[in-house]
Amino acid sequence: MKERTSPVGLHRVLEPVGVLPQAAWQLDASPEIGADEVRIAVQKLNLDAASFRQLTTKHGGDGAAVRAEVLEIITNRGKMHNPVTGSGGMLIGTVDAVGPDSPLGLSTGDRVATLVSLTLTPLTITDGLSTWDGQGEQVPAAGHAILFARSIAAVLPDDLDPALALAVLDVCGAPALTDRVVRRYASSDRQATSRQPQSRPTVAVLGGAGKSGSLSLAAARRAGARTVGIVPTEAEAESLRGAGIANHVALADARSPVALAEAVTDELGGPADVTVVCVDVPGCEHGAILATAPGGTVIFFSMATSFAAAALGAEGLAADVTMLIGNGYLPGHAEFALALVRAEPAVRILLEARVHAETSGTRIQTADSAEVRQAAG
Amino acid sequence: MKERTSPVGLHRVLEPVGVLPQAAWQLDASPEIGADEVRIAVQKLNLDAASFRQLTTKHGGDGAAVRAEVLEIITNRGKMHNPVTGSGGMLIGTVDAVGPDSPLGLSTGDRVATLVSLTLTPLTITDGLSTWDGQGEQVPAAGHAILFARSIAAVLPDDLDPALALAVLDVCGAPALTDRVVRRYASSDRQATSRQPQSRPTVAVLGGAGKSGSLSLAAARRAGARTVGIVPTEAEAESLRGAGIANHVALADARSPVALAEAVTDELGGPADVTVVCVDVPGCEHGAILATAPGGTVIFFSMATSFAAAALGAEGLAADVTMLIGNGYLPGHAEFALALVRAEPAVRILLEARVHAETSGTRIQTADSAEVRQAAG
Repeated sequence: MKERTSPVGLHRVLEPVGVLPQAAWQLDASPEIGADEVRIAVQKLNLDAASFRQLTTKHGGDGAAVRAEVLEIITNRGKMHNPVTGSGGMLIGTVDAVGPDSPLGLSTGDRVATLVSLTLTPLTITDGLSTWDGQGEQVPAAGHAILFARSIAAVLPDDLDPALALAVLDVCGAPALTDRVVRRYASSDRQATSRQPQSRPTVAVLGGAGKSGSLSLAAARRAGARTVGIVPTEAEAESLRGAGIANHVALADARSPVALAEAVTDELGGPADVTVVCVDVPGCEHGAILATAPGGTVIFFSMATSFAAAALGAEGLAADVTMLIGNGYLPGHAEFALALVRAEPAVRILLEARVHAETSGTRIQTADSAEVRQAAG
Repeated sequence: MKERTSPVGLHRVLEPVGVLPQAAWQLDASPEIGADEVRIAVQKLNLDAASFRQLTTKHGGDGAAVRAEVLEIITNRGKMHNPVTGSGGMLIGTVDAVGPDSPLGLSTGDRVATLVSLTLTPLTITDGLSTWDGQGEQVPAAGHAILFARSIAAVLPDDLDPALALAVLDVCGAPALTDRVVRRYASSDRQATSRQPQSRPTVAVLGGAGKSGSLSLAAARRAGARTVGIVPTEAEAESLRGAGIANHVALADARSPVALAEAVTDELGGPADVTVVCVDVPGCEHGAILATAPGGTVIFFSMATSFAAAALGAEGLAADVTMLIGNGYLPGHAEFALALVRAEPAVRILLEARVHAETSGTRIQTADSAEVRQAAG
């Protein structure tokens, strides 16, 4: 057993020395664990969408070439950290060794999903990814991964399909943070904005029909908000209307600031107290700011967010809004999101349709509305 | 007079249509103003440091070539928006026309600094920048600029040197937001963290001897915090200690997460409730997160901040911290910062030394400690 270990994994950093595992070029992925580490027997990698898209595009859809490059990255870096996109993904597997000082509460044999990025998770692949065709983000794999004392993993629930659970856990920070922020606005001691103190806060979710978007809409309404889901296509609008998880649904291109702000204002009767950005395309910062009331909050969950565009945009619009970088971690976030899916059948069906579309390789943009409507009713 | 104008300047966008002025490639900088616009007779441009550095490097320090490219950018784009760095700067001038519906409260003859970026300010230069040698960020210029209804400008105070006032106004969002966040932690009804409810909140400012850093330190202490200023060199440490605006001063490289967190923890007796990032170099996100207590807040003012590094970093560290994108605008931010400089002679002397160094083209890293100490005493 390794002697001295760091709770954030510094002892696994090979190059450059002194940085955190995520910033490292190369990690030590050896299987021997420290006293506060956990080893996972890997079953499946779930590659980040941006990373998989980049690799597929680079290799013109040649699955064998994509597989070879993923293997090469993991072998060279000791982690699945795409050097072009800077992103990783997550994995599922079974706990096969727990150090005596691990604070994660895991036991040997637990089936878990890691909730920290693959970009900082020591990883070794032993099967050459031989059962993966390189054609999808879900990668069957054998090997091992290491969790540190400050890593996070969730035990997969028995009552949910693992693919659905993984999809929910992948974005579970979004509904949890939305809940926290909306409750702050809903609490009676909050600073009054232009609204009446006793009225419900209003929330706009950009990309409301997606995974993080639909969970955030459901969380916002449960926290006491009146909500609008903004979607880019009529098909998504119909799907979201059918699900009934938003009070209002509107069509708008989130990259078009004025059109977006008008859509939000029309539906809510004014700009939103809280705007949640779940659209994974660049250029949504100005619209989100313009759609938010003075004293309001914008939560940026999209990894396509530009820090400079947000900072300079708010200044240029003289907008007194609080802008949050969406933190993927909050205490209890996994349990919160899974409970939301159990409590909201319409959200579950929306998500299942998305997961099914991703797994089967087809990119359908909408759940089956009739089915969703039935669940909501 | 132009007929219908947009408060955010959409009517001045030539290409591409439908985006906000900052996102536009080209603006209409014609001098005729709309009913809610203001025209400024330009006296000086203050180029953004990153923009000027890029141009100087590109042209190998050839001032004439730098001047020619600045002129070309303004002529082509109708604004000073460096296409490589994406940044602009600010300007000072005199109000020479005010539309009847302008809400900015300006009068003809007022000497003002614009507090919105040059990247969204319609600008025409009429003197070919003939009195500028291309060797410094301060650009004497003649021409005109346009302010929209939602632009922001501050009347330059009579009692402060214009160069000092400009430097303060350039970063005035930082102390104002620091004040707001610290007061939230200091208020008695706040959620208790690990600290005793009645103890003072603690604040770490990375880059505490710089312009935004020293103002943020002074604002934090006035808001009731116990503070530590983190600086990279012994000369800056001595200067900041001499000024006496921080309770503690420590040396650390903000890009080295573990060393930074240790320095903060050693000085404050634990991680900070609020960490303010004012260091304009990439790679400070992980250290700032690691130096902040659970339930604490990180305010990112540095334009070198990476959204992805912050979001994934907090998740990877399982850090329950609120991360704010530093908004350059808060109501009353200019008056707040100027009042701070008047009330804190040591801050004023630190800033004057910085401004003097920049204006004279030499890059000294420290104010004169004896002078600063005297002012603080």
